[in-house]
Amino acid sequence: MHYRHVLRRARLAKIHRRTPPGSTPGTLVPDPAAAAPVIHIIAYGPEGLHEETVPNLGALEAIRSKWPVVWVNVDGLGDARVLEECGRQFGLHRLALEDVINTYQRPKVEAYPGCLFIVTRMAREQPDPAVPLDTEQLSIFLGAGFVLTFQDKPGDSLEPVRQRIRQDSGRIRRVRADYLAYALVDASIDGYFPLLEHVGERLEELEDAVMVTSDAACVQRLHQLKRDLIGVRRAMWPLRDAMNILIREPSPLIEDDTKIFLRDCYDHTIQIIDLVEMYRELAADLMQMYLSQVNNRMNEVMKFLALISTIFIPLNFIASIYGMNFDPDTSPYNMPELRWRFGYVGALIVMSVVGALLFLYFARKGWLRSTTKIPRR
Amino acid sequence: MHYRHVLRRARLAKIHRRTPPGSTPGTLVPDPAAAAPVIHIIAYGPEGLHEETVPNLGALEAIRSKWPVVWVNVDGLGDARVLEECGRQFGLHRLALEDVINTYQRPKVEAYPGCLFIVTRMAREQPDPAVPLDTEQLSIFLGAGFVLTFQDKPGDSLEPVRQRIRQDSGRIRRVRADYLAYALVDASIDGYFPLLEHVGERLEELEDAVMVTSDAACVQRLHQLKRDLIGVRRAMWPLRDAMNILIREPSPLIEDDTKIFLRDCYDHTIQIIDLVEMYRELAADLMQMYLSQVNNRMNEVMKFLALISTIFIPLNFIASIYGMNFDPDTSPYNMPELRWRFGYVGALIVMSVVGALLFLYFARKGWLRSTTKIPRR
Amino acid sequence: MHYRHVLRRARLAKIHRRTPPGSTPGTLVPDPAAAAPVIHIIAYGPEGLHEETVPNLGALEAIRSKWPVVWVNVDGLGDARVLEECGRQFGLHRLALEDVINTYQRPKVEAYPGCLFIVTRMAREQPDPAVPLDTEQLSIFLGAGFVLTFQDKPGDSLEPVRQRIRQDSGRIRRVRADYLAYALVDASIDGYFPLLEHVGERLEELEDAVMVTSDAACVQRLHQLKRDLIGVRRAMWPLRDAMNILIREPSPLIEDDTKIFLRDCYDHTIQIIDLVEMYRELAADLMQMYLSQVNNRMNEVMKFLALISTIFIPLNFIASIYGMNFDPDTSPYNMPELRWRFGYVGALIVMSVVGALLFLYFARKGWLRSTTKIPRR
Amino acid sequence: MHYRHVLRRARLAKIHRRTPPGSTPGTLVPDPAAAAPVIHIIAYGPEGLHEETVPNLGALEAIRSKWPVVWVNVDGLGDARVLEECGRQFGLHRLALEDVINTYQRPKVEAYPGCLFIVTRMAREQPDPAVPLDTEQLSIFLGAGFVLTFQDKPGDSLEPVRQRIRQDSGRIRRVRADYLAYALVDASIDGYFPLLEHVGERLEELEDAVMVTSDAACVQRLHQLKRDLIGVRRAMWPLRDAMNILIREPSPLIEDDTKIFLRDCYDHTIQIIDLVEMYRELAADLMQMYLSQVNNRMNEVMKFLALISTIFIPLNFIASIYGMNFDPDTSPYNMPELRWRFGYVGALIVMSVVGALLFLYFARKGWLRSTTKIPRR
Amino acid sequence: MHYRHVLRRARLAKIHRRTPPGSTPGTLVPDPAAAAPVIHIIAYGPEGLHEETVPNLGALEAIRSKWPVVWVNVDGLGDARVLEECGRQFGLHRLALEDVINTYQRPKVEAYPGCLFIVTRMAREQPDPAVPLDTEQLSIFLGAGFVLTFQDKPGDSLEPVRQRIRQDSGRIRRVRADYLAYALVDASIDGYFPLLEHVGERLEELEDAVMVTSDAACVQRLHQLKRDLIGVRRAMWPLRDAMNILIREPSPLIEDDTKIFLRDCYDHTIQIIDLVEMYRELAADLMQMYLSQVNNRMNEVMKFLALISTIFIPLNFIASIYGMNFDPDTSPYNMPELRWRFGYVGALIVMSVVGALLFLYFARKGWLRSTTKIPRR
Repeated sequence: MHYRHVLRRARLAKIHRRTPPGSTPGTLVPDPAAAAPVIHIIAYGPEGLHEETVPNLGALEAIRSKWPVVWVNVDGLGDARVLEECGRQFGLHRLALEDVINTYQRPKVEAYPGCLFIVTRMAREQPDPAVPLDTEQLSIFLGAGFVLTFQDKPGDSLEPVRQRIRQDSGRIRRVRADYLAYALVDASIDGYFPLLEHVGERLEELEDAVMVTSDAACVQRLHQLKRDLIGVRRAMWPLRDAMNILIREPSPLIEDDTKIFLRDCYDHTIQIIDLVEMYRELAADLMQMYLSQVNNRMNEVMKFLALISTIFIPLNFIASIYGMNFDPDTSPYNMPELRWRFGYVGALIVMSVVGALLFLYFARKGWLRSTTKIPRR
Repeated sequence: MHYRHVLRRARLAKIHRRTPPGSTPGTLVPDPAAAAPVIHIIAYGPEGLHEETVPNLGALEAIRSKWPVVWVNVDGLGDARVLEECGRQFGLHRLALEDVINTYQRPKVEAYPGCLFIVTRMAREQPDPAVPLDTEQLSIFLGAGFVLTFQDKPGDSLEPVRQRIRQDSGRIRRVRADYLAYALVDASIDGYFPLLEHVGERLEELEDAVMVTSDAACVQRLHQLKRDLIGVRRAMWPLRDAMNILIREPSPLIEDDTKIFLRDCYDHTIQIIDLVEMYRELAADLMQMYLSQVNNRMNEVMKFLALISTIFIPLNFIASIYGMNFDPDTSPYNMPELRWRFGYVGALIVMSVVGALLFLYFARKGWLRSTTKIPRR
Repeated sequence: MHYRHVLRRARLAKIHRRTPPGSTPGTLVPDPAAAAPVIHIIAYGPEGLHEETVPNLGALEAIRSKWPVVWVNVDGLGDARVLEECGRQFGLHRLALEDVINTYQRPKVEAYPGCLFIVTRMAREQPDPAVPLDTEQLSIFLGAGFVLTFQDKPGDSLEPVRQRIRQDSGRIRRVRADYLAYALVDASIDGYFPLLEHVGERLEELEDAVMVTSDAACVQRLHQLKRDLIGVRRAMWPLRDAMNILIREPSPLIEDDTKIFLRDCYDHTIQIIDLVEMYRELAADLMQMYLSQVNNRMNEVMKFLALISTIFIPLNFIASIYGMNFDPDTSPYNMPELRWRFGYVGALIVMSVVGALLFLYFARKGWLRSTTKIPRR
Repeated sequence: MHYRHVLRRARLAKIHRRTPPGSTPGTLVPDPAAAAPVIHIIAYGPEGLHEETVPNLGALEAIRSKWPVVWVNVDGLGDARVLEECGRQFGLHRLALEDVINTYQRPKVEAYPGCLFIVTRMAREQPDPAVPLDTEQLSIFLGAGFVLTFQDKPGDSLEPVRQRIRQDSGRIRRVRADYLAYALVDASIDGYFPLLEHVGERLEELEDAVMVTSDAACVQRLHQLKRDLIGVRRAMWPLRDAMNILIREPSPLIEDDTKIFLRDCYDHTIQIIDLVEMYRELAADLMQMYLSQVNNRMNEVMKFLALISTIFIPLNFIASIYGMNFDPDTSPYNMPELRWRFGYVGALIVMSVVGALLFLYFARKGWLRSTTKIPRR
Repeated sequence: MHYRHVLRRARLAKIHRRTPPGSTPGTLVPDPAAAAPVIHIIAYGPEGLHEETVPNLGALEAIRSKWPVVWVNVDGLGDARVLEECGRQFGLHRLALEDVINTYQRPKVEAYPGCLFIVTRMAREQPDPAVPLDTEQLSIFLGAGFVLTFQDKPGDSLEPVRQRIRQDSGRIRRVRADYLAYALVDASIDGYFPLLEHVGERLEELEDAVMVTSDAACVQRLHQLKRDLIGVRRAMWPLRDAMNILIREPSPLIEDDTKIFLRDCYDHTIQIIDLVEMYRELAADLMQMYLSQVNNRMNEVMKFLALISTIFIPLNFIASIYGMNFDPDTSPYNMPELRWRFGYVGALIVMSVVGALLFLYFARKGWLRSTTKIPRR
């Protein structure tokens, strides 16, 4: 009971808007259960980097003036004042901030004056397939010389990007903020590949389970798998469109060189969608296999019942006949065979012959052949 | 009976046109059951507001000349003369007025000379899931300095917007009529979010019910849920297109600044459609789970019947054999075992062995394992 | 037999081309069963109207020169010469005339030099739902100052338009021929609304029938309903595109003012398509409900059979044991209970206990609960 | 066995490419089983025509210089040299010739320098519905003053066109080669109408068969029907696009006047696709009806079995009780009723009452009502 | 077990990315199990060719300066240094090289400065239908005067192209590198035709198997077939788009003359997709046939069980009645028929009549007719 309750909360949180219908657009009502924000700043350039966790954005001005790229990451959306301060410092639109705080957004790219607002979703692989897929919204603001990211929960898929900045690996320290934004989106997309690999393995296991056991747990697991695939698809379809918009539409914030990398991102979203669609088809097919296998098993049981019944019911009838109490004393026509020397033996022989004939009829009909086993090659 | 009758009326009302086929376009035939109109005027500007409920539109001219934005809301479509007076005062096209009175319109945006005609649908959350979703048509005319709205029934989702005007919260009092129109459409869309949250909860409950009881009520409830989702989709798909037209097509009545807010509206319609599609897929999946669960339960019953039958039918046959009346006196071959010292005991032992063997056969076939229970992890 | 034969003719007529494959395009081969043409002329202008039924088009020249708009309606396509005379008088293309005579056309708009050729289909509501939907082709030629219409059968949905002309209601007498063409198309579309209302009622009745009786007649009726919906959809989808073409593509024959009215027509076709799609989804859903209900009923019967069998088969076995003829005289082990004082009573008690235990087992498995009834709230 | 073998060959031939993968494009490898080519020439103009069957294309030059339009028809693709000679004489691209010889092409229009290459498929109505639909590729080259057609097998749907040329009916002799190409495509499309009429009849028959017999032959016939519809759709969808290209894209080889006729062709392809889709939906619906009818019949049998079993099993139990051999001599409690005066009669009465009660229970449950019959109205 | 394990590895390899999420784009991590690269160079021109297998690309500069077209084929992706050397020599983008090494790419065309990057997939026909379809990624770089190809495994479909170069057949030696790239893509596409022919044969065999045996192996085989079709579709859909891009978008690397050949490629991808879709529909249809056939067989067994039960249960009951031990000595009403002269014979006659009547009832219901056999014509 408790377990299902957890599921329910996990899923419904995705659509619960905290701002009541009709309220002023841009109203920021944080989730009371959300964590307090932790603000982490990485500022870097070709010649070095500066990294610190700060309580507020007071020192930001100084840092921005010193480093070419500043990445401010806010972890935890529990305090509306931090968001409002960000909004003031970076000149963000209130509607975008409202989308940050309502973390059920679909991935999208929106151009606001002076900045691009990118929403993507990070996947978190679940060890337990019964716990539904959990994606976390990553809100990215890309402006001149800064990238501002918001996340709901601590722990993310962005650590490798931080490492690349710290270790000065690749080109990341030598290029502008748009490349950092790309790297963050790319990291969030790449997190879906191991997850889908895991889905593939679950599908293979289910394929075996469907052919062997065919119990209700298969349906339950298929349902969970489909639900996860729907989750991935909901994250990827709009992200694909968002990437396409980033590539096609000219923006002063995105350099041409970065667009080749964004094309790679776009390609990855297509690959993921492609896999999801393939898995969905295979899952639909498995459901059909399951249903036919359930039918086949029912068939097996029914055939066995029919075999036993059709053989023994006639035999029983013969036995019942000789269990009748017609009195052979009063009439020579009243079951004289009861007193024959080989009456009993004869009855047994007749029964055996009838039973054997019925068995042969069954066999000739092909009803003794199993229809649930798959012949080995 | 009465209950279903209510349903029927609720649903059919949606497509009943009161104007007979072929009549002059623009004919206004009000629903005889519709309420008498209540006209409510809010006129406002940055420096204040004027609000009153009026019997007719006589004083309108004066109010329009005094306040930058006038919102006339007509509640109840029972009187064609009020509509015609509105048409004269604001210069509305007869075809648009005909659409106002036939409240089964799909959401749409139509440009008429001098005004935009926007049709949207407000949702009303039902406490009882057996009562189908009821959406109410909200007809909005947006012109220079005025917004004119028509509703069928008293009670609406627009109260928060009135409050925002009265309390001068946000920018609403300082901007033009197009922002008011946006706020009204936004309020009507936002009303679908709690409704869909409720649908999500019903889906979760159904998921449990399908796995546990699998009775006909599940199908009935799934059917009701799907019907509601179809209702939401019918309201949202065209509204999405309408919002897109408002954003893309240049109109002197809509300012660029308002378009950023309309983009937010558009985004909400997409989110709702996305949720509806996800719920529809989950509902279709639940239907399949239900069908397989019904089959599985049948299987269980059949297996139990087969178990009892296949064990007892052969035993019964053995008992019947010794119930035959062959006369052991007349022949040593006629059932001599009836007089053996351990004949009865031997027969019982044979029966036990046969029964046990059949039971083992059943068990080895895996037919004793339940296929309807989901193992706990 | 006869009844089905009628159906067959009704449906196949829709695709039977009378011109053999490969014949010269524009060959006019009338249906031998078609009625003789009745030519009806209404000529009108702001100042009056002239109406007559004529045997041929001899006087047409004079009428056309006198009245601004002439509407020639030909009822019955049984005579190719009338068509050819029309073709000559109004300068119609032979391919269009061929389409007039082969009355299985999809709705369409085709521009020919000097005239527009519009094909639409009029619906005819059937009182008996077993008789499939019958749509009649209405071919409209719109040229400068004339509208020429062809119908297959007497009786149409255009009478209200004639009334509007006669009574000079609305603008029809004061505007050009394109408005008449619009009014005719509009009248033919509006005829589908009551029909769909009727379909909605049939769906509601079927919903009840499926949950209550679940017999083969439900499937049959669902099939008929779907077939009718396919019929409406086949008429409306192409008509929607045709209306769109009329609105979008500039034509000297259509005035801008009329286009606002055509947009209303277009809107109606979308509403009808929307309803059809909704009904189709509900019908598909009903089919699934039906199948699950059939399964559930089978389940009920099987559970009852299983209940009776599993209770009585073991009891019968116990009775059979004491029906065995082992001779208690020859051995103290041969059924001594037959001579016990409470042997019979004991056997009855054992049977009762076994029966009760099996019944309880059944009840605990939940197999006594009905799965076909929907609990009342 | 042999019959299925024929089917297999018929179907697989459609995709067998004779050129091995990777070979030089334009390699001409004729089907070894193809017939030897028969070359038939019709040259015509307004003033007359010349028709002959020639062994090779030697005299072609002379004929082309004399007549405005020359139609060369090659029947049988068994000789690559004839194709190569055609290629040289008319300047055809090798890739087009390769498509001529691999007769599994989808209909298409390809522009090559100096000529248009049109591929269409002719239908051949089968008297036996078990033989799958057989379409034959018709390859048409349209150039300045010539039309060159290739067919695989003798016998075609083009004879009416030849007749029109010979009899100088319609405009065909007075216009250019593009009209001839149109006439050939039109003739090939028109051949599908009688075929679909026949499919419609088969559907009607199947509808009856499904409701009445519901045997496996229905499924087989539905499968064949669907396969035929897939075949028609595969021919028509691409042909529709090809016609659209011919109409939209300007080509010096197609005159504007001919385009009105091509629009008619395009319209016919849409009509055919429309019919195919409708038939496919009806067929899918029939399959569902069939499955539900099979279920219903199973239900009927099960209900009858349940009726007999539940009535007689308890009765049998009562009879068995009085077949027990408890000895009334040793105890007054041992089945005293065996010696009662009305013991036997009483037992019979008890049995009758129990049987009647069970029957009534069955009837009240509604299980005696047939669910497979459709009530007559 | 081992066999399924092989399957699993084969399939999952397709999506396993070796670069961890978030790593620097363009990181080359070869599959540790991949083969060591074998570099094979064919350089050619109209006057001759040079062919050798080299250990590294040291001599490439000299060869490129001497021959107009150089084709470098790298077989085996086990060594990142070889890829990096290729990248340097030909100026390839790191993202493209990353795609080469992660061999689960979808077919695509990407323009990089100075070269086109084409990904296609080669099919390998499997003799055993249980082994899933295995496609191998072929990465093609086309630049000025060079074609560079990468494959994962030894053995490919490109040998015929090599032969054409060696034998100077067709135009290949006389044209530029773009024609070679076309020839390679064409060879990879053509490899799907024999594979689909084989799929067609498997479908035909399954059609027989479904109607005759209907066992679980059919479902398994259908599932494998569908999985293979999904595989082909996943390779062809994106390749079709890629071909279309190559044809439509102007590129200095592709000559107009080559585009006619690419159009042929494009046509082949459409043909393959068309076949795949047709086969998928037929497979879906077969699944339905299978399910209905399983149901029908169940029906047959149930009908036989019902026949035996309903005939013998009443007979048995009659026999049981006369097995009751009511004492005819104590009452004239206690089974006097036991002592009648023709009591036994009468009982047998009654039983025969009852049995015959029940059999006739069964026959009249049509339950003796087989519903699983297809009547021969």
